Amino acid sequence: AAGAMRPWALALLLVAFRTGGARPPAPARNVLLLLADDGGFESGAYNNSAIRTPNLDALARRSVVFQNAFTSVSSCSPSRASILTGLPQHQNGMYGLHQDVHHFNSFDSVRSLPQLLSQARIRTGIIGKKHIGPGAVYPFDFAYTEENSSVLQVGRNITRIKALVRRFLQSQDERPFFLYVAFHDPHRCGHSQPQYGAFCEKFGNGESGMGWIPDWKPQLYRPEQVQVPHFVPDTPAARADLAAQYTTSGRMDQGIGLVLEELRRAGFHNSTLVIYTSDNGIPFPGGRTNLYRSGTAEPLLLSSPEHRERWGQVSQAFASLLDLTPTILDWFSIPYPSYSIFGTKRVQLTGKSLLPALESEQPWDTTFSSQSHHEVTMYYPMRAIQHQQFRLIHNLNYKMPFPIDQDFYVSPTFQDLLNRTRAGQPTHWNKTLHQYYYRDRWELFDCSLDPTESQNLALDPRYAPIFQLLRAQLLKWQWDTGDPWVCAPDAVLEEKLNPQCQPLHNEL
Amino acid sequence: AAGAMRPWALALLLVAFRTGGARPPAPARNVLLLLADDGGFESGAYNNSAIRTPNLDALARRSVVFQNAFTSVSSCSPSRASILTGLPQHQNGMYGLHQDVHHFNSFDSVRSLPQLLSQARIRTGIIGKKHIGPGAVYPFDFAYTEENSSVLQVGRNITRIKALVRRFLQSQDERPFFLYVAFHDPHRCGHSQPQYGAFCEKFGNGESGMGWIPDWKPQLYRPEQVQVPHFVPDTPAARADLAAQYTTSGRMDQGIGLVLEELRRAGFHNSTLVIYTSDNGIPFPGGRTNLYRSGTAEPLLLSSPEHRERWGQVSQAFASLLDLTPTILDWFSIPYPSYSIFGTKRVQLTGKSLLPALESEQPWDTTFSSQSHHEVTMYYPMRAIQHQQFRLIHNLNYKMPFPIDQDFYVSPTFQDLLNRTRAGQPTHWNKTLHQYYYRDRWELFDCSLDPTESQNLALDPRYAPIFQLLRAQLLKWQWDTGDPWVCAPDAVLEEKLNPQCQPLHNEL
Repeated sequence: AAGAMRPWALALLLVAFRTGGARPPAPARNVLLLLADDGGFESGAYNNSAIRTPNLDALARRSVVFQNAFTSVSSCSPSRASILTGLPQHQNGMYGLHQDVHHFNSFDSVRSLPQLLSQARIRTGIIGKKHIGPGAVYPFDFAYTEENSSVLQVGRNITRIKALVRRFLQSQDERPFFLYVAFHDPHRCGHSQPQYGAFCEKFGNGESGMGWIPDWKPQLYRPEQVQVPHFVPDTPAARADLAAQYTTSGRMDQGIGLVLEELRRAGFHNSTLVIYTSDNGIPFPGGRTNLYRSGTAEPLLLSSPEHRERWGQVSQAFASLLDLTPTILDWFSIPYPSYSIFGTKRVQLTGKSLLPALESEQPWDTTFSSQSHHEVTMYYPMRAIQHQQFRLIHNLNYKMPFPIDQDFYVSPTFQDLLNRTRAGQPTHWNKTLHQYYYRDRWELFDCSLDPTESQNLALDPRYAPIFQLLRAQLLKWQWDTGDPWVCAPDAVLEEKLNPQCQPLHNEL
Repeated sequence: AAGAMRPWALALLLVAFRTGGARPPAPARNVLLLLADDGGFESGAYNNSAIRTPNLDALARRSVVFQNAFTSVSSCSPSRASILTGLPQHQNGMYGLHQDVHHFNSFDSVRSLPQLLSQARIRTGIIGKKHIGPGAVYPFDFAYTEENSSVLQVGRNITRIKALVRRFLQSQDERPFFLYVAFHDPHRCGHSQPQYGAFCEKFGNGESGMGWIPDWKPQLYRPEQVQVPHFVPDTPAARADLAAQYTTSGRMDQGIGLVLEELRRAGFHNSTLVIYTSDNGIPFPGGRTNLYRSGTAEPLLLSSPEHRERWGQVSQAFASLLDLTPTILDWFSIPYPSYSIFGTKRVQLTGKSLLPALESEQPWDTTFSSQSHHEVTMYYPMRAIQHQQFRLIHNLNYKMPFPIDQDFYVSPTFQDLLNRTRAGQPTHWNKTLHQYYYRDRWELFDCSLDPTESQNLALDPRYAPIFQLLRAQLLKWQWDTGDPWVCAPDAVLEEKLNPQCQPLHNEL
C-alpha cells in the first residue's frame, strides 16, 4: 500500500502544481463586503435606540466599530468607484454618476480591486447595485446587478439576495472569494418608483400591488419615534421621511442577517473578513452630495474571525473608504501593482490597510475627500480634509449656488424646506436655505467645539496656523493623487515638463 | 450572340441584386469632408488678402461660400462629435474633450454618420485627428488617426496625408465613399510640441531637427503683414502668433490642394461633394471656447460637381455644422433612423440639409449653439442662438470667471495680455481681462450695429421683445434636443411623467 497514492493526495499535489510550487497553500481567506446605499448611522450599532437593527448590532459585536470613518466622496458612483479602486474620484475618473446622461466612467487603464483579485485567483461576485463602469475595468465572475436584473430585485428583495448569495457560495470553485453585496436599501425611491413610498419602504411588504418578500418582516415607525440628526430639519415632513427610511433600513438589516446566515451555512464564517459600510451620506439636507462631516461620515464595521480580542470594541482611529482596497489586498496578501494611468507618473494608493486596527487601536487622524459632480449638471467641485477635530473644505465653484439633485429635490423633506422658506415659516433647521446654497470658498470647522459645523473659522486669525497646515496637507494630497483640479479655480495646471499652477489673475 | 450575357452585364445584374431590386442604381456619389483644426477665416476665399491660400481659393471658386456658418460648439471633441452625429454636445454626450483626464465620450446608443453610412453600404475613411469616442459609435473602414499613428504625421505631414488619401481612393471597393480628412493644422502646438513653434509652423520645414515634408513649400509672414481680427489684441505678440498661424494654415492649404488633386487623379472629382470647414474658433481671446460670434463663425465651402451654376457664389443663408450630417445623408439619399438615446423620446435632427443652397439662395436665419466643458475642469455651460443679426448667449455658471484652457493659457498672445494687464499697460484689445472673465448671465448683441459684440443689450428695454423671442426659441431648442441643462441654473429638471423645471429659489 506504500506505493499507492490516495486520490485526495493526488488532488492536493495537482493543486500545489497549479498554484506554482512547493509553498504550502495559505489557509483560505475570503472577503464579504456589505454596502448600504445612502445609509447612515440608523442602527443600534451606532447607538440609535429608535431603530431595531438586530443583525447589524450582532455584526458589530463581532467587529471593530469605527467612529471616524469617512467616504472620500458623497455621491453614489464616485464612491463605489473609489471603494473598488482605492483612488479618489478625480484619480479614477468617475467624476459623477454613471447612468444615463451623466455618463461618467473610470479611466480604461485603472486597475480595480476586482481586476487585481481576479488576477490573483480570487473569485469575485457582485450582487446588487453596481452603478460603475466601464465593464472591463470592473469585471466580476458572478454578477447580478442592474445591468442584467431589476435593481429592486437584486438590491432590495432580500429573499432574492439570499438565494443569489447561496448560489455564489455553493459554487464548486476552490478559489478564495470576494463577494460584494451592494444593497439598494435604504436609498430613496420617491423620484424613480414613488408607488413604493419615499424610501421604497412598501416594496415587498405584501400589501396590494407592493409584492411580497417572504423573508422580510417589515418594521413600522411613527414619526415621533425617530431620532432626527442635527443637520436635518426637525419637522413632521422630515420625521415621516426618516420613519420610512428606518423601515427600509430594517429590510437591509434583515437582509444582512440572511447573508451572514448563508455564510455560516456554507462554512465560511471562520475564514471571511466581513466589512459593512455605506457609500455616502443620507439623502437629507447636509447629507449626500456634501463634504461636511454630516455628508461623509459613514458607519464602518470590520469583522475578522481571526481577531476576536477586538470584537465589539469601538475605534476612534480615522478610516476612509479609500482604505478598503488596501485592506482587502492586504487580507489576501496581494501587492498593489506598479503602473500609471496617464503619462509616466506611478499610481500610489493614498489609503492604508485597516488590518492593524484589528490588532490594536491606531493613531490615524486624517482623511481626505474629493467631489466634482453628482449629476452632470451639478458641478460643484470640493476638496476636503479632516484632521483630528478639524475639517477644511475648499469649494471651487463657490460663487454659484450649491446644486440640488433630482432625487433629493422631490423628497418630502426638501419640498417642505422650500415651502417653509418661501412662506417665511420656521424651518426648524440649523441654517437657512440661502446659507446652504451660498458657501464660502474655504470652510474650516472645529468639530469638537462645533459638532454641527455651523461656525466657519477659515478667516479667524486664531485658526490661521491650523488653516495653513490643513490647506498644505490637502494640496499635497491633490498633487499626490494627480488631481486635475489642483490649480482651480484661480490658476491653470500646466503639466509639461514641470507640473505647476500658473496664475489666471481672475481676482478670486 | 443574343443569348450570351457579357461579363459587365452580369456584374451589373449582381449589383442590382445586391442592392435589393430592380431600381436602377443611382450614379455613384461620394463625399470628401475637409476639416481644419482651430481654423478661421485666414484665406483668400474669405477676403483675407494677407495670406496666400491658392488651393482654398480655387475650391471656393467651385463652391457656395457661406458667410454665416457657425459651429454649434467651440471646442474640438464636442464639435467633431456634433459634426459626425448632427446632435449638439448635450445630446450626443461629448460634453468636453475626449482625451486623458477629460474623458468625455458620446453615448453608446448614439447613431453616428459613419455608422449610418456604413449600414447603407458607403465606404468610410478618416485620415487625421479623430478625437472622439467611443470607438463603436464612430467606426471607420479606413482609419489613420492619433489612435494608431502620430497625429503630427497623419494631421500635419501633407505628403503622408496625400499618400493615405491615394491609398483610400485606389481601393478596389466599388461602394461609394465618405472620406473625412481632419487636418491637425492650424492648431497651436506651443503647449504640446513647443519645439516646432507656437503653431507647429516649423514642423517639416527642412530645418535642422524639424523634419522635412517634401510636398510643402513653407510661406513665411512678417508680423506687420497679418490682418488682426477685431477680437484679438493688436500687439506685436499677437501679430507674431498670427504670422505663425498663417504659415501653418498655408501648409493645410497646400495639403488641401494635394488631396483634391488625388481626387481628380482617381477620377472622382465629378462625383464627389467636397465640404471644407473648421471645428471651432481660432485659439485667440474671444475665439475657441467662446460662443460669441467670434468663437463660433466658421468658414464653410460646399462644392458640388452637379451644381456649377452656384460655383463661386456667396451665400448669406445661415448654416450650422449640425447641418453637415443631414446634408451628407441627403446627398446619399439615406433617411435618418427612428430611435431614442434615453427613454422613449425619439431623436430628431434639428439641423437641415444644405443641399437646397446648391440650387438657390435660402432664407435660413437661425442657428443654435451649446457648450458645457472644454477641459473637464472648465465648466462654463453656455447656450446661444443667432437669429438674423441678433445673438443671445445664456451663461449658466456666470458668477464664476470664464475658464482658460491649458493650450491657450501658454500662448504668446494670452501671456502678453496677462502681462500687460498686470503691468497696467495698454492691451490694444476691445475689452479688459476682467470683462472677459466676468460675464452677465444673458448677453444679447446686435451684430449688425455692433459687430465686435461689445454692447450687451439684454437689459435694454428697447430690445425686450427680441430678447424674449430669442430666449423662447433657445429654450424650445433645448427641450427638443433633450438638454440636461434645460432648467439650469435656477431650477431642477424633473423628468418623470411630465418633464418640467422645478424652481430652486436660489436667488439667481
